[in-house]
Amino acid sequence: MAKDKKLVEAITSMEDDFAQWYTDVVTKAELVGYTSVKGCMVIKPAGYAIWENIQHELDRRFKETGVENVYLPMFIPESLLEKEKDHVEGFAPEVAWVTHGGLEPLQERMCVRPTSETLFCDLYSRDVHSHRDLPKIYNQWCSVVRWEKTTRPFLRSREFLWQEGHTAHATAEEAEARTIQMLNVYADFCEEVLAIPVIKGRKTDKEKFAGAEATYTIESLMHDGKALQSGTSHNFGDGFAKAFDIQYADKDNTLKYVHQTSWGMTTRMIGALIMVHGDNSGLVLPPRIAPTQVMVIPIRQDAAGVMDKALEIREALKAADIRVKLDDSEKSPGWKFSEQEMRGIPVRVELGPKDIENGQAVLVRRDTREKYIVSINEIPAKAAELLEEIQANLYNKALAHRNSHTYDVTTYEEFDKTVNQRPGFIRAMWCGCRECEDKIKEDFAATSRCIPFEQEQLSDVCVCCGKPAKKMVYWGRAY
Amino acid sequence: MAKDKKLVEAITSMEDDFAQWYTDVVTKAELVGYTSVKGCMVIKPAGYAIWENIQHELDRRFKETGVENVYLPMFIPESLLEKEKDHVEGFAPEVAWVTHGGLEPLQERMCVRPTSETLFCDLYSRDVHSHRDLPKIYNQWCSVVRWEKTTRPFLRSREFLWQEGHTAHATAEEAEARTIQMLNVYADFCEEVLAIPVIKGRKTDKEKFAGAEATYTIESLMHDGKALQSGTSHNFGDGFAKAFDIQYADKDNTLKYVHQTSWGMTTRMIGALIMVHGDNSGLVLPPRIAPTQVMVIPIRQDAAGVMDKALEIREALKAADIRVKLDDSEKSPGWKFSEQEMRGIPVRVELGPKDIENGQAVLVRRDTREKYIVSINEIPAKAAELLEEIQANLYNKALAHRNSHTYDVTTYEEFDKTVNQRPGFIRAMWCGCRECEDKIKEDFAATSRCIPFEQEQLSDVCVCCGKPAKKMVYWGRAY
Repeated sequence: MAKDKKLVEAITSMEDDFAQWYTDVVTKAELVGYTSVKGCMVIKPAGYAIWENIQHELDRRFKETGVENVYLPMFIPESLLEKEKDHVEGFAPEVAWVTHGGLEPLQERMCVRPTSETLFCDLYSRDVHSHRDLPKIYNQWCSVVRWEKTTRPFLRSREFLWQEGHTAHATAEEAEARTIQMLNVYADFCEEVLAIPVIKGRKTDKEKFAGAEATYTIESLMHDGKALQSGTSHNFGDGFAKAFDIQYADKDNTLKYVHQTSWGMTTRMIGALIMVHGDNSGLVLPPRIAPTQVMVIPIRQDAAGVMDKALEIREALKAADIRVKLDDSEKSPGWKFSEQEMRGIPVRVELGPKDIENGQAVLVRRDTREKYIVSINEIPAKAAELLEEIQANLYNKALAHRNSHTYDVTTYEEFDKTVNQRPGFIRAMWCGCRECEDKIKEDFAATSRCIPFEQEQLSDVCVCCGKPAKKMVYWGRAY
Repeated sequence: MAKDKKLVEAITSMEDDFAQWYTDVVTKAELVGYTSVKGCMVIKPAGYAIWENIQHELDRRFKETGVENVYLPMFIPESLLEKEKDHVEGFAPEVAWVTHGGLEPLQERMCVRPTSETLFCDLYSRDVHSHRDLPKIYNQWCSVVRWEKTTRPFLRSREFLWQEGHTAHATAEEAEARTIQMLNVYADFCEEVLAIPVIKGRKTDKEKFAGAEATYTIESLMHDGKALQSGTSHNFGDGFAKAFDIQYADKDNTLKYVHQTSWGMTTRMIGALIMVHGDNSGLVLPPRIAPTQVMVIPIRQDAAGVMDKALEIREALKAADIRVKLDDSEKSPGWKFSEQEMRGIPVRVELGPKDIENGQAVLVRRDTREKYIVSINEIPAKAAELLEEIQANLYNKALAHRNSHTYDVTTYEEFDKTVNQRPGFIRAMWCGCRECEDKIKEDFAATSRCIPFEQEQLSDVCVCCGKPAKKMVYWGRAY
């Protein structure tokens, strides 16, 4: 029994120390490992399987909108990175530089891509000549590097995995439509698959992507009341096209610049899953993204008939298109329960000799811990039903948490109190000035998360300077 | 008509200049593009879709054998790369070095992974403690970098995509079994999916992987008679385990070193597909790997009823699980035919007003150019049948080509004549000495491709030195 307790005891409770709880979960659920490469993580099988499911779901949704996948070089020559002024200022301080190839110094140093706008522009400037060559709707799955000083698994890592979509269009309208379309793909994916409710909106100029005309974002709220930017979609207008000379001959035979977009989602969504749904027993995965949806755990597996029945149940669940595993290791049942809970597997089936005698098994939900005694031939149907219920419940819980942690404030004093005493989203009016954003950041370490598409008029004046308000903004401390 | 001819005219014939033909195909079939990053290619949608299918097929086969996917850092600190002596000697001359992170020089420079044995060893040395932690059967899909001086798309590129499997086992027997198992996975994949026949065998010590105890390989023959190493599987014994101190407590409580393997297949298989099956009209893709299996091409698509019927046929093919596209662009039918042929799409459906009147369409095979008049409701069944036939035909053609270009030689004079006049595989006996391999390489620019598992006794003496022969070896000039 002492051993059975160990796995859970090893986790700090989230109420005591949320950051330590997070670290404990990523380690004990074996999502992440380490090597001697500082600031970079190993994504282990349990973590990578989540990423594969994210890829699979997103990629399918992308392709339904006409996206084509490509692969571009991981290196960017310095002169190419420098072509767009805002862009290089945003990224140059945090890139890794390759200076030698084999035994010889390079003529021009190259950085490892922190993002690939400049490379896609280089490609489009060669491949786009006529309106017939448009639109280009390309995406790539790859890793990128940003030389962060402080790192945390999934949330901030020197190397992380992502997809980056890069498109070129004939008109500004088409580019804007694509920007919003991809934001909606991300939002739907987060809500429907990850069970994470999001706020859609636009970034302020201070917070937008280096080189973009407009950045749109989806923002989610973690269990500790901090915000997480969960996906962004940028409209570049023709700024990059002018810097890289990407022109096409239109139907009227005049040369025009293309309009471009880019959009990305990263492995930090695994961090979001942990921090939105997890609890003090570990990870809690929404069924639609869980690599294993049901774990069958035999009790007294050496007793006659138990393993046979367990295998039979596994096969029945497989046949019902449920992702199922059977834990037939030599560990004790209690230890197996802890592991299944730690890994966030949505449902477990407990099955012992007595259950078999009664023609039944016990199903346990990971989210609510509710137990159901189910006759063996009804297990697939009941499991499928529970998976649906868990998916819905996790979304509803996350939505209720976000709603109860979203505070409308109209004065700077209220802002002060709220941000320090009630972690969550703060909704407050803003005059539109950079100075107020800077002051709020300096005073409260909070940033504007987005100008939401759904606006409300909470007051007529800016929460910071008292001048006439232009927009309602979501504010918060963020990962 | 002038325009219709352009696409095909742009290709050099393979008999005139095979290398130029290859370059023309990768460009005109839009598999590859370029940026200002020297020696690195862009894999465009038509090329990347082939890679996605390769990934999908291989990944499924890997997982059936218990492989788990992971992701490790792309950087390797110099001190880590240097831990295994043979390994660093093999790779250090051709790696890219990162020396700066952001604005600051790194304390220790790091290379971009040319392969990840050292990182997996670093991970295993932390994660493997007990026999219960074994085996580890990990794989990753990623890109690697080798600073080549001369590059060719897919065949030799400074950055390429691959998978690298890395396993750790309790015993030498288990490691050897896994090494052979994965070689067989590669061989079956090549033959069943890519329709490329392969020779399985072992590399000589001269040709084996830096740090391996044994390297196994599958070798295929290109249309021009040059060999291509198509997949390798390495048994490291406990060499890396000793260098990295990867030990586990066995059941008897003694500490033992693990035994390791690694195995990889790369984007160069796209090059193999081109050079094994392609012809003077472009790419020819085996149906099982073709991103698009059938292209529906309407004739006089503006005529009443043509597009409706074309759409109907597309939907019927989709419903039959055939990967189908409809070319409804404004290009001429002749141009569309050329494009479909250039891209190697296995079957096209030609459909004009007269065909519709007769309730039929014309199906054309890409491999033999044979035409079939088929009634419209029988198109899905006929297409499925043709796809099977094309798959088999391409394999048989490639096998016949390889067999007719494999030459048994017993004297050095014969070797000389054959290698210079009849490009292909040379089978000849070998004494087992490095000196003879070196001499053959110097005299003929040919290398030992493998010591095949299926041995024959062609003569009693080494083809080079005349001393007693130990093994029959496949020799050849290679990519």
